[in-house]
Amino acid sequence: MIKANTVSQVREQVKKWKKEGLSVGLVPTMGYLHKGHASLVDEAVRQCDKVVVSDFVNPTQFGPGEDLETYPRDFEHDCALLEAHGCHMVFHPDVSEMYTEEIATYVENISDMPKTLCGKTRPIHFRGVCTVVSKLFNIVTPDKAFFGMKDAQQLAIIRKMVTDLSFGIEIVGCPIVREDDGLAMSSRNTYLSAEERKQALVLSRAVKLGQELIAKGEHDADKITSEMKALITEMPLAKIDYVSAVDGTSLKDTKTLKNGDLVAMAVYIGKTRLIDNFTVNCDKG
Amino acid sequence: MIKANTVSQVREQVKKWKKEGLSVGLVPTMGYLHKGHASLVDEAVRQCDKVVVSDFVNPTQFGPGEDLETYPRDFEHDCALLEAHGCHMVFHPDVSEMYTEEIATYVENISDMPKTLCGKTRPIHFRGVCTVVSKLFNIVTPDKAFFGMKDAQQLAIIRKMVTDLSFGIEIVGCPIVREDDGLAMSSRNTYLSAEERKQALVLSRAVKLGQELIAKGEHDADKITSEMKALITEMPLAKIDYVSAVDGTSLKDTKTLKNGDLVAMAVYIGKTRLIDNFTVNCDKG
Repeated sequence: MIKANTVSQVREQVKKWKKEGLSVGLVPTMGYLHKGHASLVDEAVRQCDKVVVSDFVNPTQFGPGEDLETYPRDFEHDCALLEAHGCHMVFHPDVSEMYTEEIATYVENISDMPKTLCGKTRPIHFRGVCTVVSKLFNIVTPDKAFFGMKDAQQLAIIRKMVTDLSFGIEIVGCPIVREDDGLAMSSRNTYLSAEERKQALVLSRAVKLGQELIAKGEHDADKITSEMKALITEMPLAKIDYVSAVDGTSLKDTKTLKNGDLVAMAVYIGKTRLIDNFTVNCDKG
Repeated sequence: MIKANTVSQVREQVKKWKKEGLSVGLVPTMGYLHKGHASLVDEAVRQCDKVVVSDFVNPTQFGPGEDLETYPRDFEHDCALLEAHGCHMVFHPDVSEMYTEEIATYVENISDMPKTLCGKTRPIHFRGVCTVVSKLFNIVTPDKAFFGMKDAQQLAIIRKMVTDLSFGIEIVGCPIVREDDGLAMSSRNTYLSAEERKQALVLSRAVKLGQELIAKGEHDADKITSEMKALITEMPLAKIDYVSAVDGTSLKDTKTLKNGDLVAMAVYIGKTRLIDNFTVNCDKG
């Protein structure tokens, strides 16, 4: 596995691969990799000849008071995981390599898409995400890019960006990967104490509850999110940020659930903000 | 010369060229081509194996009340000019091909760069320019892109965009091309009546005056722009929008002129808004 720290290293290697007619997949990550990331790499290896994983904690998507400084990092462990899963190149730049001078040009979705759900409390987050993903797209010039469905709002906004800016890149969304007890994989799970870790299970239980209600024929978004909220509120360490039902493409609030809608939540467990979601399938929940 | 109307046609053709190891140059235009555009095509042909010219009047860079509807168009004439200058492919999409759905994702420079000079009266112009140029970059994926120095503010903002968004594209700025009597080539010159056409010469005369003052050793920006303004004001049909001296990279106002600074103006001649500029060379003016 090639370890690249500079943009020019990546460009040169990708150029060589393209000259050989090989397809390239990109998995953008912020590192501290877990089985969720591994599943993205696996899918990229299945679909592409060469796989590049970017491992970069991007400062422009963190707001003031968020966890930029404390965000967990372990590049050695990341490399071991990536090598084991067949990644061909990891791109691990310094901040100064990605932002060589004060940035002025941003990629931003100016509709309501980045203002709902997580955007209510993270106003600049998706502008930072769109900007750094655009940069990674321009550096790696992949044929396909792989994103987790756990960050469902991010995935919808990236898909819209690809359409709006005519990127010639196929976006592949990959299913949420969970621990055996149901907790969605997240680098931020490492922040949880033992007791918080137990109570954090309420997110996946709420997902299951929502799916069961839909499977029973309930399609009223308010009723479903209310029952999910009631379940979460039972946990003393849980504080709901939001539990919402939205159209899966436009992210506009929905009242009657249909296939493809997104039921998403953000919940603080102690000081740690966790997210989870599911996409509605009216036959199965 | 290939005439492409669709994004997929362009992508397929460029893919073929790249497979053959050929370099690709892009000249983005809004059509109604003149010798200024031709000089960009000539330079692209000199520097690249294959040259793509986009010919598209981009609605997102026109504000309300601007000349989107009346902007001159003559695709047949454009094709004749392009063919004569060795262009390999012209990309001439409908608006619906470039904007398949309501656009929400824009590329925008949020610094003061797009707020000065032309941006004072055209607040959304450079957001539209950055967005459509990003789209064209993503569709054509050129090695180099060629822009005229007549649109000096645009060129500076595009250069900044390429740095900020890590586009792997070299930006080539090409000198202003003038009519024999000095008037800078512009598609909008076609709006001018015979009398306006005469009085429009005051822009290039102001350029010459500014250069002469600098050649004589005057470096005070205020003095130079004041004399230029006084000259322009002598023309009864001329109404100054701005005459300004700014740093050529940051576009920040400058008081003492140095090499690389930009002295730029926008002047209404009757109802037609014309621009002109020069880059300071303290040895030559």
